Amino acid sequence: MDHVDHTVDAGEPRSFDTIAILGLGLMGGSLGLALRHAGIGHAISGYDALPGRAERARALGAVTAVAESPAAAVAGADLVVLAAPVLALRELLRAIAPHLAPRAVVSDLGSTKAAVVRWARETLPDPSRFIACHPMAGKEQSGIEAADADLFAGAVWCLTPDAGAAPDALARLRALVAALGARPLVLDPARHDEAVAGASHLPLLAATALVLAVSAPPDWPDVARLAAGGFRDTTRVASGDPRMARDIALSNREPILRRLDAYIAALQGLRARVAAGDPEIERAFTDAKAARDEWLRTRAGE
Amino acid sequence: MDHVDHTVDAGEPRSFDTIAILGLGLMGGSLGLALRHAGIGHAISGYDALPGRAERARALGAVTAVAESPAAAVAGADLVVLAAPVLALRELLRAIAPHLAPRAVVSDLGSTKAAVVRWARETLPDPSRFIACHPMAGKEQSGIEAADADLFAGAVWCLTPDAGAAPDALARLRALVAALGARPLVLDPARHDEAVAGASHLPLLAATALVLAVSAPPDWPDVARLAAGGFRDTTRVASGDPRMARDIALSNREPILRRLDAYIAALQGLRARVAAGDPEIERAFTDAKAARDEWLRTRAGE
Repeated sequence: MDHVDHTVDAGEPRSFDTIAILGLGLMGGSLGLALRHAGIGHAISGYDALPGRAERARALGAVTAVAESPAAAVAGADLVVLAAPVLALRELLRAIAPHLAPRAVVSDLGSTKAAVVRWARETLPDPSRFIACHPMAGKEQSGIEAADADLFAGAVWCLTPDAGAAPDALARLRALVAALGARPLVLDPARHDEAVAGASHLPLLAATALVLAVSAPPDWPDVARLAAGGFRDTTRVASGDPRMARDIALSNREPILRRLDAYIAALQGLRARVAAGDPEIERAFTDAKAARDEWLRTRAGE
Repeated sequence: MDHVDHTVDAGEPRSFDTIAILGLGLMGGSLGLALRHAGIGHAISGYDALPGRAERARALGAVTAVAESPAAAVAGADLVVLAAPVLALRELLRAIAPHLAPRAVVSDLGSTKAAVVRWARETLPDPSRFIACHPMAGKEQSGIEAADADLFAGAVWCLTPDAGAAPDALARLRALVAALGARPLVLDPARHDEAVAGASHLPLLAATALVLAVSAPPDWPDVARLAAGGFRDTTRVASGDPRMARDIALSNREPILRRLDAYIAALQGLRARVAAGDPEIERAFTDAKAARDEWLRTRAGE
């Protein structure tokens, strides 16, 4: 009777006691620090495939215990978060599937979502307990040493549940995200992947191609001497983790190709105006500035 | 005798007493503030074509006097700095030419240099007194309100004298640049324009095209919600002054077209690997990260 009253009246989803984080790079490490700063979870077990990294995560306070294997990490956990590059997630899901506690909620922090949701459906004993996630936060430094308890503060945190996801699992995870100071946004996995291709994957490819194009011989030394804040910021995301970038490129192919084609078309439009010496190119700069400035304003107001 | 001893023994180029700044936006305003903070120039006369802006510059301490015309501004000045968008410089040079003091040093802060040097040669009574400049500093905000006394601190400041430039004019300007805390770099105008097309103009066009491509309907609202720090930084320079951007695009055509072609080729290379699902795309990310990280290290060590 107490239990029923509590869940119905307060409407407060139950939090998590024992949490496992698999993958302790920038994202997993920051999640551990954020959970501990928020006082969520009595025990946080951490696993990383890289020797020694889980121990460093414990030393930095991101986890409370080091697990020797994915199976050991998830034993008894009521929340399991996979924080590895996207293409490692399928194997991780297979590795943990036989060892999950019966009603454990499973989530991930991968950059693309449709494939992960499909893998969970194929792999987990109860796929309704899987709620895929993608926090829209990051920085170009990687590894546990770059982890930051405030990385997710104020960030949009996408939750992309499959159609059959359990409402209680979604509600609990959503409450957790809010408790970490992030802004939960529930959306369809495919719609997420389309949008993130524009918001994040295209900027990554644009920045990478920019560095590759100008750092080629013969005059990179000249360019490097003149390059300043504009070059630094436009290319910042090209300094991120190459493996994560690779997994993004391989796991979100169609949306990325559509964005790349639109981008190359926009560049060719600018190129035609430069070649023609057309003063109307100013309109392109005005339009881009207006769209970006409006985006900044909306973002600041949220 | 005193005069000769002074210049030969001390080797200290003579500073400037009376300075005119024509154009009081971000760059001209910041120059005025930097000069006054450094205690250089007894009088700094300011002119701007925008009504009221020179008065605001005086109120902010960027100039000591407001001039009603370019001719009035340069009267009696031993240093004249043109701080207007590139395509306005030709007309400004014509306007001041009959009014310059006999040995006045003339300079500019325009984003491209070969055309400006040519216009000075065609226009000024003594083109050997013209030393074109381009400080590699800026921000996306524009106008006198964005002016900043520290904008040039530590920045590379290009000086691109014509072959016939007077050595004393170059030496005096170079000393001024160093006194402002910037790092003078003397190079050929054409070489400057090639390098800056890679370091600055291509990033501007890449950022502009990125905003234009993703802000097009139908799903810009989705993209805008998910866009975070990566999008913000990759597109920052697209929020700059559209007129300045237009003048860059129109005044440095051939170098920009070469950079755009190399950039589109790099993007098409990445596109082919994404389309093929080729894991070797990781090498592109690794190469770009290595080049950028090395650039950051070199830059930090200077």
